[in-house]
Amino acid sequence: MPKAKASIRQLKAPPPSSRRSPCPVSCALDIFGDRWTLLVIRDLMLGRSRFKDFVNSPEGIPTNILSERLERLLAAGIVRQIPTSDSGKRMAYELTEKGEALRPIMKSMRDWGLTWEPGTKAVLQQS
Amino acid sequence: MPKAKASIRQLKAPPPSSRRSPCPVSCALDIFGDRWTLLVIRDLMLGRSRFKDFVNSPEGIPTNILSERLERLLAAGIVRQIPTSDSGKRMAYELTEKGEALRPIMKSMRDWGLTWEPGTKAVLQQS
Repeated sequence: MPKAKASIRQLKAPPPSSRRSPCPVSCALDIFGDRWTLLVIRDLMLGRSRFKDFVNSPEGIPTNILSERLERLLAAGIVRQIPTSDSGKRMAYELTEKGEALRPIMKSMRDWGLTWEPGTKAVLQQS
Repeated sequence: MPKAKASIRQLKAPPPSSRRSPCPVSCALDIFGDRWTLLVIRDLMLGRSRFKDFVNSPEGIPTNILSERLERLLAAGIVRQIPTSDSGKRMAYELTEKGEALRPIMKSMRDWGLTWEPGTKAVLQQS
């Protein structure tokens, strides 16, 4: 029997030379400093894993932006691809350890929004 | 004697109708979800206050982007303008209470970068 194709990808992060400065905040923003990337990470933290799950989120991420962001997250080692349960060909995504480590950032952003932006409502569980 | 001109501005946040969703993370990203805004906030947390201080940061923010971001932060109630000590005409910026409340986000991003992005170096004090 042939071996299963090695389709789970985890690319390397961009070289440090592309950084704007050695500041850890700046380097973090080089990866996810935009309107969409942390929403995909939020969805992954909520247990969503497939392309169509992310597309169906209420903010309505355009599919071309989603594709580019997933590639970037793969390249940064924040997500990895996994086969879906329903088909061997389709792929889904999950957070790596590096991606899971973004949880304190997500929680502090959620808490700030809940406190300072009237009318916001958390989906991510309080903890 | 005439009263001092009311030049300290603090505009209102954009109306909730411009939000992509009621998610507090999404609403936060509507304000500072980009590569530059949190770097200006980082600089304010480090005690920098004037336009030229922000321009001189190592990441080299373009002046047109900086102007736009400062306007957005004023509109969101995250910074306020204050007169500089050296001249009555020039203005400087400081964080409001809402802006100071971003500190846990900044710290969690710094900590994540220091842990997961090799070669990064914190300027913001550990705490």
